[in-house]
Amino acid sequence: MSPRFTGVIPPIVTPLTSEGEVDAASLERLVEFLIEAGVSGLFALGSSGESAFLTDARRDRTIDVVVRAADGRVPVLAGCIETTTSRVIERVEIASKLGADAVVVTAPFYTRIHPVEVERHFRAVKAASDLPLLAYDVPVSVHTKLSPDLVLTLAADGVVDGIKDSSGDDVGFRQTVLGAAALPAFSALTGHEVVVDAMMLAGASGAVPGLGNVDPHGYVRLLQACAEGRWTDAAQEQDRLTRLFGIVDAASPDTAGGSTRGVGAFKTALALRGVIASAAVSAPMRELTGEETRVVAAHLEEAGLL
Amino acid sequence: MSPRFTGVIPPIVTPLTSEGEVDAASLERLVEFLIEAGVSGLFALGSSGESAFLTDARRDRTIDVVVRAADGRVPVLAGCIETTTSRVIERVEIASKLGADAVVVTAPFYTRIHPVEVERHFRAVKAASDLPLLAYDVPVSVHTKLSPDLVLTLAADGVVDGIKDSSGDDVGFRQTVLGAAALPAFSALTGHEVVVDAMMLAGASGAVPGLGNVDPHGYVRLLQACAEGRWTDAAQEQDRLTRLFGIVDAASPDTAGGSTRGVGAFKTALALRGVIASAAVSAPMRELTGEETRVVAAHLEEAGLL
Amino acid sequence: MSPRFTGVIPPIVTPLTSEGEVDAASLERLVEFLIEAGVSGLFALGSSGESAFLTDARRDRTIDVVVRAADGRVPVLAGCIETTTSRVIERVEIASKLGADAVVVTAPFYTRIHPVEVERHFRAVKAASDLPLLAYDVPVSVHTKLSPDLVLTLAADGVVDGIKDSSGDDVGFRQTVLGAAALPAFSALTGHEVVVDAMMLAGASGAVPGLGNVDPHGYVRLLQACAEGRWTDAAQEQDRLTRLFGIVDAASPDTAGGSTRGVGAFKTALALRGVIASAAVSAPMRELTGEETRVVAAHLEEAGLL
Amino acid sequence: MSPRFTGVIPPIVTPLTSEGEVDAASLERLVEFLIEAGVSGLFALGSSGESAFLTDARRDRTIDVVVRAADGRVPVLAGCIETTTSRVIERVEIASKLGADAVVVTAPFYTRIHPVEVERHFRAVKAASDLPLLAYDVPVSVHTKLSPDLVLTLAADGVVDGIKDSSGDDVGFRQTVLGAAALPAFSALTGHEVVVDAMMLAGASGAVPGLGNVDPHGYVRLLQACAEGRWTDAAQEQDRLTRLFGIVDAASPDTAGGSTRGVGAFKTALALRGVIASAAVSAPMRELTGEETRVVAAHLEEAGLL
Repeated sequence: MSPRFTGVIPPIVTPLTSEGEVDAASLERLVEFLIEAGVSGLFALGSSGESAFLTDARRDRTIDVVVRAADGRVPVLAGCIETTTSRVIERVEIASKLGADAVVVTAPFYTRIHPVEVERHFRAVKAASDLPLLAYDVPVSVHTKLSPDLVLTLAADGVVDGIKDSSGDDVGFRQTVLGAAALPAFSALTGHEVVVDAMMLAGASGAVPGLGNVDPHGYVRLLQACAEGRWTDAAQEQDRLTRLFGIVDAASPDTAGGSTRGVGAFKTALALRGVIASAAVSAPMRELTGEETRVVAAHLEEAGLL
Repeated sequence: MSPRFTGVIPPIVTPLTSEGEVDAASLERLVEFLIEAGVSGLFALGSSGESAFLTDARRDRTIDVVVRAADGRVPVLAGCIETTTSRVIERVEIASKLGADAVVVTAPFYTRIHPVEVERHFRAVKAASDLPLLAYDVPVSVHTKLSPDLVLTLAADGVVDGIKDSSGDDVGFRQTVLGAAALPAFSALTGHEVVVDAMMLAGASGAVPGLGNVDPHGYVRLLQACAEGRWTDAAQEQDRLTRLFGIVDAASPDTAGGSTRGVGAFKTALALRGVIASAAVSAPMRELTGEETRVVAAHLEEAGLL
Repeated sequence: MSPRFTGVIPPIVTPLTSEGEVDAASLERLVEFLIEAGVSGLFALGSSGESAFLTDARRDRTIDVVVRAADGRVPVLAGCIETTTSRVIERVEIASKLGADAVVVTAPFYTRIHPVEVERHFRAVKAASDLPLLAYDVPVSVHTKLSPDLVLTLAADGVVDGIKDSSGDDVGFRQTVLGAAALPAFSALTGHEVVVDAMMLAGASGAVPGLGNVDPHGYVRLLQACAEGRWTDAAQEQDRLTRLFGIVDAASPDTAGGSTRGVGAFKTALALRGVIASAAVSAPMRELTGEETRVVAAHLEEAGLL
Repeated sequence: MSPRFTGVIPPIVTPLTSEGEVDAASLERLVEFLIEAGVSGLFALGSSGESAFLTDARRDRTIDVVVRAADGRVPVLAGCIETTTSRVIERVEIASKLGADAVVVTAPFYTRIHPVEVERHFRAVKAASDLPLLAYDVPVSVHTKLSPDLVLTLAADGVVDGIKDSSGDDVGFRQTVLGAAALPAFSALTGHEVVVDAMMLAGASGAVPGLGNVDPHGYVRLLQACAEGRWTDAAQEQDRLTRLFGIVDAASPDTAGGSTRGVGAFKTALALRGVIASAAVSAPMRELTGEETRVVAAHLEEAGLL
């Protein structure tokens, strides 16, 4: 028995038209680009996928396009990011109908919630669906940290099949990994694109790097090196990718929030690489300016990606 | 010209059946109870209304019931609480169709957002509807504070018609009120039920007290005293209401989050007073226990409300 | 029996020479200026007094100068702001020797501390001195909020004689005031200069306004109006002072932190008014620029203080 | 040229008598224990050293004892943890006189400070002493994060010689390490005892693990494995140490803050191992109870350390 989800599972961005609709053709090309690069799965409707920015109709469309394009070659994980239990369950049911292979769910947000309520939330979501369930730990968005104890309890009870960790709490991640030693199917996925080598050494099952949209080949090489115990090679690949991650500093922090700077840069890079048609992002984010785009292009050239 | 919204505008709770559906009969009774007590408006689907816990269908049902029950006697403000612009606009359009008289909108949440993006968000929402728009400042949920400068800029440009302030930042509220002196139609509504007298002295237009569900007569008396310059009377009424607010400490903080403790207590009190049928709350919150309910009952008795 | 500390008790700034030494002559003039304006006490070595910026020798010098200059006409409260218990006790002993009439103490900071440890801290400090002890609630600096329950427990046990509230939590302040109704000697002092009228209506004993350094006469008039039940007059005086408080926005937030912007503005105003010799502040803060000083001057002129 | 500080540099705890005085004999034994285990340096008066809890006299005594006991065999780094510039400089001057080989300094705390003021702070501290200066990034205590850009700017200008990173921000740490590639003498020390292997792979120079007081041999083996490229061995040693780190959960979070739980556990373990005489901690922390001590003992036995 081994972790259900391993390798590189990019949180796939959602290409948009200038009207904000899902650009299905671009999304299909992106799926193909990622699968050809060797990724192990696709995570649709995560933070990089603008889940919080898309209407339900656009969310449905996104899952549908990704599932059809992936066509069973790799599993599709669908983010079901909603404020509370009933709303999440609605999203889980839709993801299930649309053919997703697993769902990714956060703790409740917007509300003021107690850890026992967070636990109840995950149990209720699990009870509503047979799909594998990954807990998404992203306190920067949810403003609640999932404790290792809670995650391990839920995992031991078969409620969650793994974690997508974007908490930045490497200590908690290590404790979760160590505590899950007796749970061989547990997937411990790190969402931090600049320390994947380190988290793999710490026992991660795989990575969900937003930057993996832009350079999936690099992350595939990185995880291959980890798998083969070539840790110094892994660290060198990681260093290269960390420099590339500098594209998220292209947009000015004086006029763009963190979501814009991240997703905007990933989309700009993908447009520059010819994978998607447009770098458009959802309101109230903004597209990168010409000058900011040139900064992204310079990074891509330095990384040999243009 | 004077502020559009004044007086007591309770953030009406949403009575639920044990299955989590909207209990329309209870909701109608609650509307009647509040209007008979003399409130000036009703704010549906706020935090006390469990907006974040209700599916879209239940949200729609809630607005529909409240609008029909109010029947034009007082304006109905509808919370359109969603993560980002497109999703908010969908909710605003539905609220408009269902007959709401105004909408209440927060800054984006879940995302990492820059103040200029918050401003763009409100402008885009306003552009999508003719309804009056109140900015809802609730950093405990949204994790972004609306600055007085931003609110005043939006107000001067006709984008927002007022603020529903649940920020706890009395300094910012005072500065907003003072800055709005040149904007006579601006409504400055305080959401802090235990300092309504103080905020009215500071220039608030009215109050949106969650506790106003439970004791609307008390808040109506309080605002009447303020309006007549009987500040000492107002303070005494406020002191009584502040003691009553102790019901939110009935549920144990060891097993209940802030949302449960607040909404759960309000509903328990309304059920005890015979206004609504059940104190049921949405998952993953929990209903108050028998012992906790007795604490609420004791408070109601002390306040002469049972 | 009535609260021990009432009225206006400015957190007196500490005038400095360009070398960072205490400018005793300016400090004496400032004490005189404040007492002549009718203040009820002086709070030395608070946040406005740059307590955290002064070496122990300069702190001692500050208390010594203020105590001698006040000469028993009004009580002198001395901030004993240190990270933990032993260090606070050292400061309390020195303040006592130098003739302070009361000490003002925060919860521990820098450390990660539990509420029961905070309680132990205040009990240990009290055990070390006979001086009246005020709990200083300033979470923006200490990053711990003193709960009303804790403050009231300590007050009931004779550990603390009151609170200096700079928490911005008007709800907690109201609950503290209300809970202290049975403790007639308890002093509830608000540190928020722009809502003094509102907090007095809510039952505060007095105010500790940083801006009271600059316009003590205004705050004395404001509290007089409150005392006489002229609440509308109080609110008008408060509105004037709130506008004057705009001086803290003179220094650019792009190059100055909150401490610089506040203390720097107060000192600049006092220098412009001729009370102190220099607007110098401690490193790493910076003095206001010429342009920023002109903004302060414009505010003073508008307020009729130049 | 290579980093000035490498290997294991434990933040040495400060053994105390029951009266709270420095227990010099125990401290000397601890120094000997650590040096014999092969540590590369000693960091006195860090968070684990109760710096924030000790009076200046006890701080001086601590440095003095450690410097004399180390006797030049390994460098002694002295924490100069104070709120602001002048106060830090006083501590740096004393550390220098007492023979410390380097000083470790945080950003200002308690105050509200701008990044440009943080930069000015470090520059002023450096200007006051010839000792090597390490920036201590510990936002959980200081509530300010040192950005990689700031640290690298200060390093390039010769102001700081390295960083002691206790931020938990592995992304920032990686970016700092990568950015320091052109600064070969820069020391990047991680303070996170449970991910030392991962941070070494990411390019750290060494580690400052609080748990290194308890099991210095383990950390020395761990860093040796890293140095020799035996990454799997390193990870296994780390996993063992991570389990041992469970001692910080011995004290109940219901009655003990994080400082008590950490330092209290380290001291308890050292007392159980016979290195120091007493597990006493400074007020308002508390010593571990008998039951909690048994939990620590069980961990030590499992780790083969008793």
